[in-house]
Amino acid sequence: MSDATSQDAYRQQMARKKRLIDARVNKADRDQGVLLVNTGNGKGKSSAGFGVIARALGHDMPVGVVQFIKGAFSTGEETFFRRLPGVDYHVMGEGFTWETQDRERDIAAARRAWDQATRMLGDTRYGVVLLDELNIVLDKALLPLDEVLDALRRRPRMQHVIVTGRRAPQVLIDLADTVTWMKMEKHAFKAGIRAQKGMEL
Amino acid sequence: MSDATSQDAYRQQMARKKRLIDARVNKADRDQGVLLVNTGNGKGKSSAGFGVIARALGHDMPVGVVQFIKGAFSTGEETFFRRLPGVDYHVMGEGFTWETQDRERDIAAARRAWDQATRMLGDTRYGVVLLDELNIVLDKALLPLDEVLDALRRRPRMQHVIVTGRRAPQVLIDLADTVTWMKMEKHAFKAGIRAQKGMEL
Repeated sequence: MSDATSQDAYRQQMARKKRLIDARVNKADRDQGVLLVNTGNGKGKSSAGFGVIARALGHDMPVGVVQFIKGAFSTGEETFFRRLPGVDYHVMGEGFTWETQDRERDIAAARRAWDQATRMLGDTRYGVVLLDELNIVLDKALLPLDEVLDALRRRPRMQHVIVTGRRAPQVLIDLADTVTWMKMEKHAFKAGIRAQKGMEL
Repeated sequence: MSDATSQDAYRQQMARKKRLIDARVNKADRDQGVLLVNTGNGKGKSSAGFGVIARALGHDMPVGVVQFIKGAFSTGEETFFRRLPGVDYHVMGEGFTWETQDRERDIAAARRAWDQATRMLGDTRYGVVLLDELNIVLDKALLPLDEVLDALRRRPRMQHVIVTGRRAPQVLIDLADTVTWMKMEKHAFKAGIRAQKGMEL
């Protein structure tokens, strides 16, 4: 294949792709808040949520973060986002549920965190609300699912919400606008590399 | 089941989980830079990369970002991270390849971006380097794959690198420590919601 032919084929391929994308862009014409769910067993569910938070802050949109599971992980994000203006950051008081081993205490902690979440979900000033690891709380039935779905449905029309964590309930997936299933193909941890600062911590 | 029994079952389940996790944590005892690859067709590959960048900044680690595909998307992150200290941010000059439709120009732009990347990959001061959408560049063979793999292999031992984008080459997946496949289950765009500020933009 001559260089000219190859260049021509490339141009045609890209032109076809551009037409397809332009057509899809033109078809999407509604504006509304998006409910994003990141679930699955892979790395990136929370990080992707925090990446969207950074994106929103780039537009000077005020954001809210509620971390439903506080653990040894993710201390970097907390330090980073807490010191920024425009970020309302709450962490559920207790550790991982497998650290506490006390269901009543976990339920009480989940309720206090959820109180912060409902306040944000009822306030149009929050452009994006990140409910980090809420799926775990729902999976363990530490909060009533109906109450959570109801608050998500009744939030301000333009507010974006991100829910992360393994095992998202099917009804939440049904309600969501965008859902990413993050599948672990490989993890450094399994190859004997401990959690690293700036990567997992 | 009585409350006491249920509480007891919960405690036992969580204690079992804790033992499993502790055992895995104890087995992972090496410290090294992690090569993370986020691929697949779902939303979150770049956002998760930017979330890790935020995590690293929380530990005051200097970071480098090279965005290989500049487009209409992701303007929020760029604005946000560019204004922070400790962030070295580069964007490849041209738009999406399907906007330019000129292979030679795309190759030249990829080379200039890769020059920035190799500089970072050769410098121990960068704790984390994000090579955003590099997979697309590799998939289109705009850079020699061997040269990229070689630079990744020879980087400082403790440096973390994140490579994002659809269609990661298998050899890159083989080299990586952690790989997440992000699968699109649902996308707001397909339901007619246009790209929203703070979510996609």
